[in-house]
Amino acid sequence: MQPASAGIDTAGVTALLHRGRTLPQAELRSAVARLASPMDTVAAYHFGWIDAEGRPADGDGGKAVRPALALLSAEAAGAAPETGVPGAVAVELVHNFSLLHDDLMDGDEQRRHRDTVWKVHGPAQAILVGDALFALAGEILLELGTPEAARATRRLTAATRALIDGQAQDISFEHRERVDVAECLEMEGNKTGALLACSASIGAVLGGADETAADALHAYGHHLGLAFQAVDDVLGIWGDPQSTGKLTWSDLRQRKKSLPVVAALAAGGPAAERLGELLAADAKKSAAEFEDFDEAEFATRAALIEEAGGRSWTEAEARRRHEVAVRALDGVDMPAGVRAQFTDLADFVVERRR
Amino acid sequence: MQPASAGIDTAGVTALLHRGRTLPQAELRSAVARLASPMDTVAAYHFGWIDAEGRPADGDGGKAVRPALALLSAEAAGAAPETGVPGAVAVELVHNFSLLHDDLMDGDEQRRHRDTVWKVHGPAQAILVGDALFALAGEILLELGTPEAARATRRLTAATRALIDGQAQDISFEHRERVDVAECLEMEGNKTGALLACSASIGAVLGGADETAADALHAYGHHLGLAFQAVDDVLGIWGDPQSTGKLTWSDLRQRKKSLPVVAALAAGGPAAERLGELLAADAKKSAAEFEDFDEAEFATRAALIEEAGGRSWTEAEARRRHEVAVRALDGVDMPAGVRAQFTDLADFVVERRR
Repeated sequence: MQPASAGIDTAGVTALLHRGRTLPQAELRSAVARLASPMDTVAAYHFGWIDAEGRPADGDGGKAVRPALALLSAEAAGAAPETGVPGAVAVELVHNFSLLHDDLMDGDEQRRHRDTVWKVHGPAQAILVGDALFALAGEILLELGTPEAARATRRLTAATRALIDGQAQDISFEHRERVDVAECLEMEGNKTGALLACSASIGAVLGGADETAADALHAYGHHLGLAFQAVDDVLGIWGDPQSTGKLTWSDLRQRKKSLPVVAALAAGGPAAERLGELLAADAKKSAAEFEDFDEAEFATRAALIEEAGGRSWTEAEARRRHEVAVRALDGVDMPAGVRAQFTDLADFVVERRR
Repeated sequence: MQPASAGIDTAGVTALLHRGRTLPQAELRSAVARLASPMDTVAAYHFGWIDAEGRPADGDGGKAVRPALALLSAEAAGAAPETGVPGAVAVELVHNFSLLHDDLMDGDEQRRHRDTVWKVHGPAQAILVGDALFALAGEILLELGTPEAARATRRLTAATRALIDGQAQDISFEHRERVDVAECLEMEGNKTGALLACSASIGAVLGGADETAADALHAYGHHLGLAFQAVDDVLGIWGDPQSTGKLTWSDLRQRKKSLPVVAALAAGGPAAERLGELLAADAKKSAAEFEDFDEAEFATRAALIEEAGGRSWTEAEARRRHEVAVRALDGVDMPAGVRAQFTDLADFVVERRR
């Protein structure tokens, strides 16, 4: 992928994500500790704080883009990053609520290189703990008892509803023969854009920003989310398994109608036609038959997607969304250093390899 | 069961419950209509508005105790019942969120004489639509944009967390040999008391009541919930299948550690000992072996529970909670007619046969 802007401040982004992971950590852990047993243990396993036997672990809690954004967002409103902490905790709780439920609905057995909660603790715990994390998110915010907290909760609730809509759309796509690019983008906007939009604005709301500034930050996060997802969709097919931790051709193995696939099919021409025939035949195969595919079969499909222009369209989409995201920042009066960090984060999202 | 107080105003309670079902109906339906397809349809099926084929239906939406309380609660604060409508919609949404998830976790195939959502539309839809109803509840309240709405949402969120704790406890009891009375009451307080407590206070909060009055109404609802559940536990064993719509000895068939069972075991004496032996042996049986039981086996267990005093203890518990609930109303200055309706509803809950 082409750099979206010259020279990312890698050290700066690393520090920003590190802060996103560490600054809200104590409050996140004490929120989770409120859960009744055994939900507290199940949640601690999900977050990677303990292993399946209950021993302390130092798991990969994810990239922490959402909490990092929430803290930076507080600074955009001229407040201290600490002001964004309850927002960071709340978006992280909602994100993990959705992971717990989605992994169960999708039958995904692995997440962050570990068995998923439903696989280790059973479906009921995955449902319950997901529900509990969602409720906790509202609790953490509303306990602040301020009008800003109520506005923040309203935004978070709307984002959560969009998240759920996105998952519903994603599931419905599995049963459909054809999905168009607009539908795919709408689904990704809901599934990835909405919570990043909320993350990018929630700290500012808690820091007293007006609705116009909050909406501009929301727009930044929304388009950042679409850029993020476009990159994810490219990595889901062509990503290096060493970096992504996923199998080669991961999304093709899952027969996912991701952006490169959908864009390739929409492009028309001989490669798109041949791809359409192959995928239509694939769709009729049983899971077992499909699993017997060898690498060459996936490589053929990936090459056709590339030939039809699905890869380059998706890479260009990531750059377009990056541009719109960064431009949305113009609508907010904020310290130059904070603006630079928002921009660096957007660069990082588009240029990452995993 | 003995009448808890002389002469219930049956017509009054019927009218109150009817209002709970009808007055918030339009707002409830328009809230559900916000859901993306197919979640809107799945939710409409769950609420009994359509059948499994999508044809309009006039299903039994439940007793509507919660929305009825929310409306009455607004009147307790001197506001119009309409002020309580968003609260009534929100508690109804949360109640149905928990039914959708609990039915799936518990593997219950029937609810209100119809197949449950997971049975008709699959587990993923039960999870998704449950999540969506929970999110909608917060959305409906927070859209009001008032400090009262934020306080109401905070109470609802806390109640939802308690609901989830209660379900977690209920599930954990299934895997335990012995549960004591205090644990059972705590579980029932969470699973039934918390949302009734919220229902009884949410309208008042929206109507501008102070925290003291809201807390008193909360206490009324909490104890009403425990009375409700005690009655439910008695009906779950000795209820008339014609009235309850459940099988005879329903809770015994499910090997539920409900209050009469737990209280009987705690009572000691020969009947309790014999019961303990039988239930310990039952617990070791496979579901198939257990299903082969004939009526006489359940009748034996029910008779032992009664002999050990489990039934009379639970009936007395319902009356005690009824008394505490009604006494809690003394803490609130409200119109006499409103107070009478709260009392009538408590009488109804304790004296109902289904």
